[in-house]
This record gives sequence, structure tokens and C-alpha cells, in this order.
Amino acid sequence: MELFAMSTLSNSTNIFWHECQVGKPAKQKLLNQNGCVVWITGLSGSGKSTLACSLSRELHSKGKLSYVLDGDNLRHGLNKDLGFKPEDRTENIRRTGEVAKLFADAGLICVASLISPYRRDRDTCRAMLPDANFIEVFMNMPLELCEARDPKGLYKLARAGKIKGFTGIDDPYEPPISCEIELNQENGVCPTPTFMAGKVVTYLEEKGFLGYLRVWWI
Amino acid sequence: MELFAMSTLSNSTNIFWHECQVGKPAKQKLLNQNGCVVWITGLSGSGKSTLACSLSRELHSKGKLSYVLDGDNLRHGLNKDLGFKPEDRTENIRRTGEVAKLFADAGLICVASLISPYRRDRDTCRAMLPDANFIEVFMNMPLELCEARDPKGLYKLARAGKIKGFTGIDDPYEPPISCEIELNQENGVCPTPTFMAGKVVTYLEEKGFLGYLRVWWI
Repeated sequence: MELFAMSTLSNSTNIFWHECQVGKPAKQKLLNQNGCVVWITGLSGSGKSTLACSLSRELHSKGKLSYVLDGDNLRHGLNKDLGFKPEDRTENIRRTGEVAKLFADAGLICVASLISPYRRDRDTCRAMLPDANFIEVFMNMPLELCEARDPKGLYKLARAGKIKGFTGIDDPYEPPISCEIELNQENGVCPTPTFMAGKVVTYLEEKGFLGYLRVWWI
Repeated sequence: MELFAMSTLSNSTNIFWHECQVGKPAKQKLLNQNGCVVWITGLSGSGKSTLACSLSRELHSKGKLSYVLDGDNLRHGLNKDLGFKPEDRTENIRRTGEVAKLFADAGLICVASLISPYRRDRDTCRAMLPDANFIEVFMNMPLELCEARDPKGLYKLARAGKIKGFTGIDDPYEPPISCEIELNQENGVCPTPTFMAGKVVTYLEEKGFLGYLRVWWI
């Protein structure tokens, strides 16, 4: 009896895992939304965190579950062992992409907010997901504007040579060649956080991410 | 005007982030549950994945959102750069703990299923969260049983010396000294997946994780 029970459980371990796992579709149905990754890229000071926050609030007000992965915050936790060497930057983005993928798999709208200056690194993250589920948002703000804002005082330090390899100063930012959403100044005026969030929300609505897709057979 | 707008946005970037971020309480209210980490530890073949799966199904049937972080699965993604050296195992657990913390912060019941043989590594993950939000579940099954099951054929390889540093064979498993839930055989009979999941669900219910806690002032 005991051996039989052991054997049954042993066999069912593998089968159970593959057959019974509550997958993404079930979670999406529960949440009435479709999991995806909104990847916000741009220079320091371009407004990535502001957009991420505004977007998170807007989605929440619509009863949608999102989660913000903020580059700076992650460097205090998951990525605290990483510095700013090129290979560390790449690993920083890779790990963030892997975690974003897990959140999307859990049915959430995952908002990743990182400078992510290298095109190749962003494309690596895109390739982790079905293409339509990776929504790249480019904060296309001029360097002069970002430097004038300098919310963390980092441009000043970079110009003084106290930070090396700073994106936009002595390390390149590679703009997306083809991204889903681009945000920029109009007539020299910056869009408001609400306007920017609205643009992303509209995109998500149009693509069906804010309602669970039901297929009716008629 | 433009400078003013820039300045306003610049200032609001920092304030906005801290003040307006949709935090854990708001997400918990939306989900009507409280985020936490259920950390399942035990030997290979002790039934961790089986419990994780069964628990995930049971929670889903109650309309609760959970997400399983499976040690094996993560080694194909987030942790694919890590091997099985002691420092790699430690980093494997650390990263999983950091991600579990993020999921709990998003309001989910995060179910982490890893051998996680070293007490110190598990305690590191526990320390990342408020103590009550880390629920350690010890699959206390005898080595002989796990080895008899050997669902992945790994014990056989370890006994043949083809895998080095295998937990329970030539690498130690350090059982928890004090864990929230312990699962073991009763009269030589293994508990069923449903029974095990039920025990965890009961714990979560009793501790208020399956309903958003509202405090009424009376």
C-alpha cells in the first residue's frame, strides 16, 4: 500500500505539473486583462518614472493590475550585485526582462522603466515574449531638456567627470528603430504625465490588453 | 513658459514617484487578498512542485491570484547563468527571494518551490519581507522515499557519481528549525496533494491572506 501510494505520487508529480498548472489564460480571465510588458526607455531625466507612475495610477483607476519594475529600485534588490560596466548593464536589462516576462505570465501589465540604452539589450527582452506583448515606449526627449531637468543631479556629476560612462554624455543612447509608442515634445512643450499615460492606455485598450479576450463561436 | 514647465515636471518627477505610486495596499484591495510568499523547501522528489501546483489550483478556484516560482523553471530563464556551486546556489535563492518579494509587493500569493537546502539562504529571503509574510513550508519526507520516487532520475545519477554535490547524497539539506508549516507522512502514508494544499490554504485563510484586511474603527 505504501509503495503503491509512493509510486502513484511519484508518477503524478510530473504529469500533474504539466497538466494542472494554472496558466496565463486562467489568470488573465480572473483579472479580466491580458498580461504584457510596457517597456519605457529613454535618457535619465526623460520622464520614464513619471510616466510609469502615472500609467500605474491610470490602470489602477480602471481596476487593472499593473506592476512597475523601476531600474533604480531593482538595483537596490535583485540587481544590487551589478555595476555599470557594459556587461553589467546588459545583465541588468536581461534580469529585468526575465522578471517582466514572469509578471506578464502572471497576467499583470508589467511596466518596466529603465534607461536601457542599448538596442540589442532591449531586443533581447522583446524576444523573450510574443512580439505583440512587448510594448516599447520611447521617451524621445532632447538631451538638453533632460540635462536641464537633471532631477538626480547626475548630469552635473557626469559633466564634471565624477561619473564615467553616463548615458548621453560619454556613453551612447541607441534610440529604437521601430517602437510601439513614441513620446516627444510638441512645439517645444512637454506632454503632461496624464497625457503620456493616456496615450499608453489608449494603445493597450485598442490592442485588447485591458479586457480578457473571449472568443465566441457563432 | 517652457523652462517653467520643465522645472515643474523636473520637480514633480521625484515627488510624484514617492507620493502617487500605487502601492501594495491598493493592489491588495483590488485583488481582495494580501500579498505574501509561500516558500516550499525540501529534498528533490519530496513533492514541492506537486504541492505548488495543487496550491495554485486551489487558490485559483477561490478567485485568488497566485504565481509559482519554480526553481527548475527559473534556471531556464532568470537564473540560467548560475550553476550548482555553493555561491551559485546562494545567488539562485537570493534572486528568487527578490523576485518573490516583488510578486508579494504586487499583491500576489507567490509560491516559491525550490530545494533551497541551506538554512542561511532561506533566512536571507525571509528577512527580505515582514516576517509574517514569509510562510515557510517544509516538505519533511524521508530521503529513502524521495530516492525511491526519483521522478527526474537524479538520485540514480548522484549515487553513480555522475552528479556531484547533490542535496541529500553528497551535499547537506538543513531542515528548518522553526517553520510555519511542516508536511510529513502519517503512519507511513504520504499526504495527498489536495490534503497538503488544503493545509496551506487553511493557514493562509486563518492569517487573513485570502481577504483584504479592513480595519473598522468602532
